Amino acid sequence: MSVFDDLFLFTNLASILYTSRAKGGYWDMDSNLSDRASTIRVFFEPKSVAVVGASRTQGKLGHTILKNLLTLKFKGQVFPVNPSASEISGVRAYPTVSKIPDDVELAVIAIPAPLVLDAVRDCAGKGVRGVVIISSGFKEIGGEGAERQHELTQIAARTGMRIVGPNTTGILNTHNRFTTTFVELKEVREGSVAFIAQTGMFAGMMLERILTSEKFGLSKVAGLGNKCDVADHEILDYLAQDSATRVIMMYVEGIKDGKRFFEVVHRLTRKKPLIILKVGRTEAGAKAALSHTGSLTGRPEVFDALCQQAGIIRASDFDELIDFAKMFAYQPPPRGNRAAIVTLSGGAGVTAADACLQSGLRLADLAPSTLQRIAEKMPSWATVRNPVDIEPLSETVSIVEAYRIALEAVLSDKSADLCLLIMGTFRIPGVATDFLKAIKNEYPQKPVAVCVIGVQEIYDQLFCVIEEVKIPVFPSVRRAVNGLAALYRYTQLRS
Amino acid sequence: MSVFDDLFLFTNLASILYTSRAKGGYWDMDSNLSDRASTIRVFFEPKSVAVVGASRTQGKLGHTILKNLLTLKFKGQVFPVNPSASEISGVRAYPTVSKIPDDVELAVIAIPAPLVLDAVRDCAGKGVRGVVIISSGFKEIGGEGAERQHELTQIAARTGMRIVGPNTTGILNTHNRFTTTFVELKEVREGSVAFIAQTGMFAGMMLERILTSEKFGLSKVAGLGNKCDVADHEILDYLAQDSATRVIMMYVEGIKDGKRFFEVVHRLTRKKPLIILKVGRTEAGAKAALSHTGSLTGRPEVFDALCQQAGIIRASDFDELIDFAKMFAYQPPPRGNRAAIVTLSGGAGVTAADACLQSGLRLADLAPSTLQRIAEKMPSWATVRNPVDIEPLSETVSIVEAYRIALEAVLSDKSADLCLLIMGTFRIPGVATDFLKAIKNEYPQKPVAVCVIGVQEIYDQLFCVIEEVKIPVFPSVRRAVNGLAALYRYTQLRS
Repeated sequence: MSVFDDLFLFTNLASILYTSRAKGGYWDMDSNLSDRASTIRVFFEPKSVAVVGASRTQGKLGHTILKNLLTLKFKGQVFPVNPSASEISGVRAYPTVSKIPDDVELAVIAIPAPLVLDAVRDCAGKGVRGVVIISSGFKEIGGEGAERQHELTQIAARTGMRIVGPNTTGILNTHNRFTTTFVELKEVREGSVAFIAQTGMFAGMMLERILTSEKFGLSKVAGLGNKCDVADHEILDYLAQDSATRVIMMYVEGIKDGKRFFEVVHRLTRKKPLIILKVGRTEAGAKAALSHTGSLTGRPEVFDALCQQAGIIRASDFDELIDFAKMFAYQPPPRGNRAAIVTLSGGAGVTAADACLQSGLRLADLAPSTLQRIAEKMPSWATVRNPVDIEPLSETVSIVEAYRIALEAVLSDKSADLCLLIMGTFRIPGVATDFLKAIKNEYPQKPVAVCVIGVQEIYDQLFCVIEEVKIPVFPSVRRAVNGLAALYRYTQLRS
Repeated sequence: MSVFDDLFLFTNLASILYTSRAKGGYWDMDSNLSDRASTIRVFFEPKSVAVVGASRTQGKLGHTILKNLLTLKFKGQVFPVNPSASEISGVRAYPTVSKIPDDVELAVIAIPAPLVLDAVRDCAGKGVRGVVIISSGFKEIGGEGAERQHELTQIAARTGMRIVGPNTTGILNTHNRFTTTFVELKEVREGSVAFIAQTGMFAGMMLERILTSEKFGLSKVAGLGNKCDVADHEILDYLAQDSATRVIMMYVEGIKDGKRFFEVVHRLTRKKPLIILKVGRTEAGAKAALSHTGSLTGRPEVFDALCQQAGIIRASDFDELIDFAKMFAYQPPPRGNRAAIVTLSGGAGVTAADACLQSGLRLADLAPSTLQRIAEKMPSWATVRNPVDIEPLSETVSIVEAYRIALEAVLSDKSADLCLLIMGTFRIPGVATDFLKAIKNEYPQKPVAVCVIGVQEIYDQLFCVIEEVKIPVFPSVRRAVNGLAALYRYTQLRS
């Protein structure tokens, strides 16, 4: 089955899930699946890499791929392959992969599509275990491209050499600093979030964005492109067993081998949250996906039902995918859905109350003793409710102390499961976040999200120092609440 | 009628709208309404202002209000009022408003709630024409606060002196640099967007954000707080006639005098787009609004129906309110809903196609000649469809040239009404936007939005230079498409 066959899946899901449950924990999977999955390791942890199409010309993909490996100081051996160069960027080059005297575990291929098959055959002859094909011009263009892709699939099946792609940006492993991406990387940040993307350019652009505007780090990235051989579920299986990965986010046009996919996912989501952005939901989107990665996107309502049953968290756009991943990277799932809101702005509090109710959370009924604890520091005219408007409190104590008193009070209340803190940027003396760190240590079971609204420069400072203590910061009330609600959905899906 | 009385409105809307239509254009309104509206001018264009509660103490609201007027170089006279100071920040101070020897058109009041009534009576005695009450401690706290607010309403009715607030941040007019806000302002940018907000702190925080992270400028800001006297429709009426204002955005908890409001709005929206974010839509949100500004929020489904009929664009959160305002400030409403998508990333193109269909747009059927015009510059293996993936084009020409060729082709096609351009940040040599400026001049009737995904620093640069030519830039595909869809909704609402 080469594409997501939704009807088949829909009728068979019950039995798949039943079988999975009966088998017990994650590692109890059939050995055939595990054997295949073990062939995935080479894509992330190769000891030696050939870059086919390595180039001296700046701007060429093959130039950037080699440069990235050198800049990031990848810990394995690197062999540029180019028939007309004996050395590139100071590294000895070879005319073909088979001419490389040492073992080559992995090859990255970035040459025009009509030349790819010969290069792949050369790799197979050399005993290369995995190939990442960056080049486009395959199934997504139909005709001879589709034929070329079919032949790639045949070579993989015949030789056992695994293939990622074609039409992709490929792999990043922040731990050993290995990458096949053609987007120029200067630095990467290690972290616990893995990212699986179908599409090359998009994965690259999003990677740039995550690396330059987010604090949470990545563990592994896999761009799978047209998926001529290696499928989503194999990468997921590898990541399920990867100790560096605690959260997985995924951009999907079409799923390859849907049955296997949901089988793996069902086990995975009991251990690690999986967040999916699925596109191609409309007729126009589905058509665009077909011409983009040759994907059949399936019927959205079927996919939605399967995701729900398999315990997948859904994101509705890329911002949300990143927001949710950050949330899960920093915070635990809550015990329940009762939200306490602490806010400098009453209006933002009203907005947050709406957003909570609309996203499946509800407002905590704070205990009278909690309200009293906050009220006794307030001017006599003020009343305290949830959302807790701290503006009156800031008339008697400093604004940071007001945040601290209210946050401490609501988090120590057993009737609140999680908390949203809405801050302004004014009267913030420097960036005092000691209290947030202390609170995170004291109430590790209760997720907290922060929304900051105000002066951009101070927002940026607060973003850095607050995320440093692993409390997520959002620029909008809605995004912060949706993030908390995603945590709660995971609590529900697991129970 | 002091609050939004939804049942009454719902049954009477048909007749209201009929009457408005029968009367003709905007200016043909009943004279009573216009007379009242003319009393609003003083809040934005006072010749002289007393700041009651002006303070020497940094951090006090009354200190910042005075400081803002001096920093921004407000063009009228300023009188600090404080019984225990003869001079504040170098300006002669007076113990009460009535002791000021000159005429005082407007007073800003920022003193504890129990002292406010005496100060307001003093203003009325002096012949002040308008008062902005910053102080909180009125209807939003119930009891004696509600009584105090009732008395304010009585004073306004009895004396004809108009009152904005209480419990608000008040006014900003970027043109004459007048403001009553307690949020410290260093600079303001003139522009065509007016912002009406119910809530003080929120308006202040959002103002900070807009002023520091957006390029589009503001014309007027009005925070109305508890609305003891001046109502939404009076500000709207003033803004409808304000030549500096082309777009109005509004944050609403409850509407005061709903009948008048929709009457004014119905006329207004034929001339200028009005974008509203309405909160208090859930039970929890409605309760929070009641304790925040004493607002009754009304039934959401009634409000939605009235907005639809009155031609109001709805925003679902604050980001969207800003996004839509920017869209309307920079771009015209399109003739139809046929979208052309030009994208560096196929995946982002699929995402955009979905987002278009989900938001009421559809994909343009580009003419064969248009597709041919793009295809002839591409490598032979590539095919061209809408979304137009320019990645192959960037293999034969520079990336900026690829954007230009595709954008020019789709905009000159009669089958496209609007365009989304999705850019990456790599291989952008400097920030070449001449081609965008030229295109904007050549196709002024076709709105274009840009989405940039990639390295944060380059995003920031592109944001500045592209918005300089009044093409809006968004960090996400969804937000850009929703912005374009809002433009089209306005086209529909007006027809």
